[in-house]
Amino acid sequence: MKKLILSTLVFSSAAVVSAQELTSPDNNLKLTFMLDSNGVPAYTLTYKDKTVVKPGRMGFIIKDGISLADGFEMTECDYDSVDTVWNTVWGQSSTVRDNHKEMFVSLTRKDNGLKMGIRFRLFNDGLGFRYEFPVQPSLRHFTIENEVTQFVLTGDHKAFWIPADYDTNEFQTTTSKLSEVFELSKGVIKNPPATNEPLPYPAVQTPLMLKSDDGLYINIHEAALIDFPGMHLNLDDENFVLSSHLTPDRNGDRGHIQTGSVSPWRTIVVSDDARDILASNLILNLNEPSKIEDTSWIKPIKYVGVWWEYFTGQGSTWAYSDEKDIVIGVTDYNKVKPNGHHGANTEHVKEYIDFAAEHGFDAVLVEGWNQGWEDNQAYLKEKIYSFTTPYPDFDVEYLSDYAAKKGVKIIMHHETTSSVIDYERQLHDAFKFMNKYGYEAVKTGYVGSIIPRSEHHDGQWMVNHYNYVAETAAKYHIMVDSHEAVRPTGLYRTYPNWLAQESARGTEYDSFNGNNPDHHTILPFTRLMGGPMDYTPGIFEGDLSVYGPNKAKLSTTLAKQLALYITMYSPFQMAADLKENYMKYPDAFQFIKDVAVDWDATYVLEAEPGDYITMARKERGADRWFVGAITDENARTATVSFDFLPKGKTYTATIYADGKNAHWLDNPKEYRIYTKKVTSKDKIEIPLACSGGAAISIE
Amino acid sequence: MKKLILSTLVFSSAAVVSAQELTSPDNNLKLTFMLDSNGVPAYTLTYKDKTVVKPGRMGFIIKDGISLADGFEMTECDYDSVDTVWNTVWGQSSTVRDNHKEMFVSLTRKDNGLKMGIRFRLFNDGLGFRYEFPVQPSLRHFTIENEVTQFVLTGDHKAFWIPADYDTNEFQTTTSKLSEVFELSKGVIKNPPATNEPLPYPAVQTPLMLKSDDGLYINIHEAALIDFPGMHLNLDDENFVLSSHLTPDRNGDRGHIQTGSVSPWRTIVVSDDARDILASNLILNLNEPSKIEDTSWIKPIKYVGVWWEYFTGQGSTWAYSDEKDIVIGVTDYNKVKPNGHHGANTEHVKEYIDFAAEHGFDAVLVEGWNQGWEDNQAYLKEKIYSFTTPYPDFDVEYLSDYAAKKGVKIIMHHETTSSVIDYERQLHDAFKFMNKYGYEAVKTGYVGSIIPRSEHHDGQWMVNHYNYVAETAAKYHIMVDSHEAVRPTGLYRTYPNWLAQESARGTEYDSFNGNNPDHHTILPFTRLMGGPMDYTPGIFEGDLSVYGPNKAKLSTTLAKQLALYITMYSPFQMAADLKENYMKYPDAFQFIKDVAVDWDATYVLEAEPGDYITMARKERGADRWFVGAITDENARTATVSFDFLPKGKTYTATIYADGKNAHWLDNPKEYRIYTKKVTSKDKIEIPLACSGGAAISIE
Repeated sequence: MKKLILSTLVFSSAAVVSAQELTSPDNNLKLTFMLDSNGVPAYTLTYKDKTVVKPGRMGFIIKDGISLADGFEMTECDYDSVDTVWNTVWGQSSTVRDNHKEMFVSLTRKDNGLKMGIRFRLFNDGLGFRYEFPVQPSLRHFTIENEVTQFVLTGDHKAFWIPADYDTNEFQTTTSKLSEVFELSKGVIKNPPATNEPLPYPAVQTPLMLKSDDGLYINIHEAALIDFPGMHLNLDDENFVLSSHLTPDRNGDRGHIQTGSVSPWRTIVVSDDARDILASNLILNLNEPSKIEDTSWIKPIKYVGVWWEYFTGQGSTWAYSDEKDIVIGVTDYNKVKPNGHHGANTEHVKEYIDFAAEHGFDAVLVEGWNQGWEDNQAYLKEKIYSFTTPYPDFDVEYLSDYAAKKGVKIIMHHETTSSVIDYERQLHDAFKFMNKYGYEAVKTGYVGSIIPRSEHHDGQWMVNHYNYVAETAAKYHIMVDSHEAVRPTGLYRTYPNWLAQESARGTEYDSFNGNNPDHHTILPFTRLMGGPMDYTPGIFEGDLSVYGPNKAKLSTTLAKQLALYITMYSPFQMAADLKENYMKYPDAFQFIKDVAVDWDATYVLEAEPGDYITMARKERGADRWFVGAITDENARTATVSFDFLPKGKTYTATIYADGKNAHWLDNPKEYRIYTKKVTSKDKIEIPLACSGGAAISIE
Repeated sequence: MKKLILSTLVFSSAAVVSAQELTSPDNNLKLTFMLDSNGVPAYTLTYKDKTVVKPGRMGFIIKDGISLADGFEMTECDYDSVDTVWNTVWGQSSTVRDNHKEMFVSLTRKDNGLKMGIRFRLFNDGLGFRYEFPVQPSLRHFTIENEVTQFVLTGDHKAFWIPADYDTNEFQTTTSKLSEVFELSKGVIKNPPATNEPLPYPAVQTPLMLKSDDGLYINIHEAALIDFPGMHLNLDDENFVLSSHLTPDRNGDRGHIQTGSVSPWRTIVVSDDARDILASNLILNLNEPSKIEDTSWIKPIKYVGVWWEYFTGQGSTWAYSDEKDIVIGVTDYNKVKPNGHHGANTEHVKEYIDFAAEHGFDAVLVEGWNQGWEDNQAYLKEKIYSFTTPYPDFDVEYLSDYAAKKGVKIIMHHETTSSVIDYERQLHDAFKFMNKYGYEAVKTGYVGSIIPRSEHHDGQWMVNHYNYVAETAAKYHIMVDSHEAVRPTGLYRTYPNWLAQESARGTEYDSFNGNNPDHHTILPFTRLMGGPMDYTPGIFEGDLSVYGPNKAKLSTTLAKQLALYITMYSPFQMAADLKENYMKYPDAFQFIKDVAVDWDATYVLEAEPGDYITMARKERGADRWFVGAITDENARTATVSFDFLPKGKTYTATIYADGKNAHWLDNPKEYRIYTKKVTSKDKIEIPLACSGGAAISIE
């Protein structure tokens, strides 16, 4: 039935009966919206006369055999344009320009009068469009069976992709031709963290980065994912057609919609210069302005934490005890035998508070502080943790006072193990607990399969949950960093207390050789297009065999770890290594201590996805600049042109570079630090080792 | 696979290798627990040497092919006995005697060492047994595929049954032979409210009332349903074997269990006198004592309300407006056009407060007070209602003050339309709102399909939800009456603030001819075995054509409506009719005004399921008695023996009886009221009309 309906919906370019055009402010991009003789809507996009996407179908198939994908006539077409500048609460720049042309088409089905709108916004760096579902007498609620939206590519592009998966995005990115995705994904989805939810492969996740043979960089994603399932992309690898694959719930429904609402924006960022992709604010501009009126309490955070020790293999545990017979809310932990290697104990946390205070960090993340880790079974068990009950050896009151005295904040940790309903039950109490003890930020986690058991991580219900947590947290003046959540879509503009997300492979995967050296040159073109990532950089001791039997090695040089503070943008930035390791390399550590986490301006100096990135940023409200340059597995020379500096002044640049013989695999810790006077006219070249990098601070 | 496993589990009585016996305190009941040569556990029960159930299998099939239903050896068998009396917070008697013998058998699988316990409690009026799942190294969490428990009947008993259904229990009860259930259920499940969830019929719900040809009354149900799915019963109608059919979630799982827990009790109440079934406290005794320490704030409630007018067809609506374009939390109701016939408006509620105050009612139920009724679509929509925002024409503050001045409480209404997650999100705020405005009791409702969309009304998750609401309400000193919830299992002993439930057809069905005249003689033997029902009796004007086009007629005489206040036990008892109708029959109304809702003692004088019930009760803490006698569609003469009265004193009995020509169908309102002096030695006979009744108050 589904196949039948879809097969009637082929867009026939030969039979176009109406066409509306829209041009970007700089005239480089041209969008055409069309209806064919069957009333099938489609769109096409060109950039400097090169085709970005050929005519691709639009619309939805609704449950019970209703089509919002054909039989339409256009009943309205309105144009608008915007050119404005808005201030960010925090970000890669203090202001953002929103300069776009808009076209809104209203479609009405000729047979039954059902209405749907499509709103296009064309920026100089790409296109966003969304569907609008007006309230209408015969359509008040509906369930989506399929979204039809296509992205019809012009050829077998190079793609930076991870496989579609309803419950995780923590895959290693593969770089390949689109035609190779299917074969290559077979290997990827055999291994963790793939959940292998039945899905017709080939299918991939967004943000999807593409490069065409004729030199176009194309990024496909979505913006403002609200009350809608997250979008994956089916790949027709013969015709190179991508099409929306909305995450279903376990009943197979792909979104319950109440009319009077809109879909998220489908976005195509495009340029012939890869740097423009990284510089794009298109997704941010398509999100609504902040819903939080007083944002004075929202502040970027640089932090350390009781965290990496759980991954190094040195024996530290989240759990307080090795006993498994724990029933949360019933077990008296004072009668439970401690295992003697619980990470989040008062003394140890105190050491980290001292360390943070001494070295100027804002906060200390503490994982494993609360009851429930001993038997944290996902999916089978609903009551896993208490979010208001510390372990007996974590003196929350004392540590709260101690941290306050030292001018340091403690970052709360709420691992839910995906018992989301139970988390929601505790949410208000948990936030009140945080308020009581002076916590200002929470790291949330969603490991494992979701309860409610109808849901997936990327489905509509969970999307609503993540947004609900951010919105509720704002009421308590709490900042949020979500892990294992759906990939971000720029919602941090609307909820600027939502500082960061994980939603990709972070440093933790380095603890089992899970990151490739090119990982860091891809993430800014993929995952980071939607928003900041809590990547947790800053590992100095990359050889895990120093801790025990783990033979894993970090995927970068030490200098590259420094550069990540610039190239992996986040207002929630960790110095992830053990404090002992920083003390061994105080000169290199100085960069992490100095580096800012909020910016007035960002300059993409060099960029090629999967190969290299060089970026400069100006610290917000200060005359300090920082540069980061990274490369993939290949050594290269980064060129830093200082023309981003104010003219006519001389600055001191401190350069943290790979040593001559540095190499990520066998000599990652060789680095050299030197200073240089620079002006805006200077240009320097810095050799980067294999998976190496360089960082510069400029005053 | 499932069939294969089950087929290997036939209990072989010929090969019993071990047998343990337990006898009831009065020696009338004898339980035998057996293991056969395959280690299959089974039990059998006799009453005065008549077989109640023949050997029936016990245990569980667990997901991933693990069996807890065979391969066992008995590794422990302990005996215990209890004879104690406990005080009720409220109830049909002020004290309850718990007199039982206990046997606990511990079973261990010979092949893999998995352990399971079975605890039997044998009372003079029946058996309860439950499974216990100890914490063990190789079994910490498991998912139930099937419960094996059988009730192997001795023949083709007469049964009072409703069909199994995962989402509703609001069926008309059918009386038939078990062998007729399958054919008859085909008709029943074709019509609303059947949800037709795929289920292998024949299957029925509990409490199931049976009568054997040899005169045994047998009632099968469960007690203390906590963290477990509700049980339906599959019926093998050739061999008359009932077996547990646990309510699955939509993924097909029948309970996620963490070891260190127990199942609900499976109960068999049995006697050769039907009155003993109604008098049984077995289910109550199998529940845990009150978890609420201070119960002083918990009080039975007699109430009136803005309710019946929504069913009569006179035009009153829950919704404030006829506009459908409502988005809860967004729509400004002050700008919405009122429909002019909204029931819960300030003036009208005030009238009911006046009425309650004048006639001595404790409270006024107000439905339709809160925003969201205009577009209350179940399942497709998650945000339906605000539980803290009244409609513009419901002045909560004024009414709260006004009611307080009049010494009357307003009863809160929380219809969730089964968007349970959203209700849980609002729960604390909703209860705080109630506290703020002096509400002490809430009527909850669960119409429609459940969100979370993996769940059914009777599944484990929803069971936990209902319990969670009761438990949470207790923290706010709020009493609960749940509608459309899973049938009760005596949990009101543990949470005495959980005053009542609906969980069966109430008076509302009379508004469309949905109740049969024998309904009221069956419910106390079925639905009410688990706990009090908010049946909402007291309809005086039973001809709905007086209000408009609705031609429905009440299924009883007026006098029977009075008797229901005694025969349908509830500490949460409504006078459901419009106040205008009570004013037309002030003499009959006097009984409702007088009748108590809490009791020191209850006496079942006459009873036969489906035919008649005559009961007397002594008001708690007062020397007043009330009698109710009802009959089915057949006229009969009730015999009331007053030997429950203290000896040697003379009392005045006011008798409310059917008039000579009364008949439920064409002359329901003919009644006569007369007084009589009575002593404990008196016995009177009262003619009851077809579906008639009589009520007596004695002072």
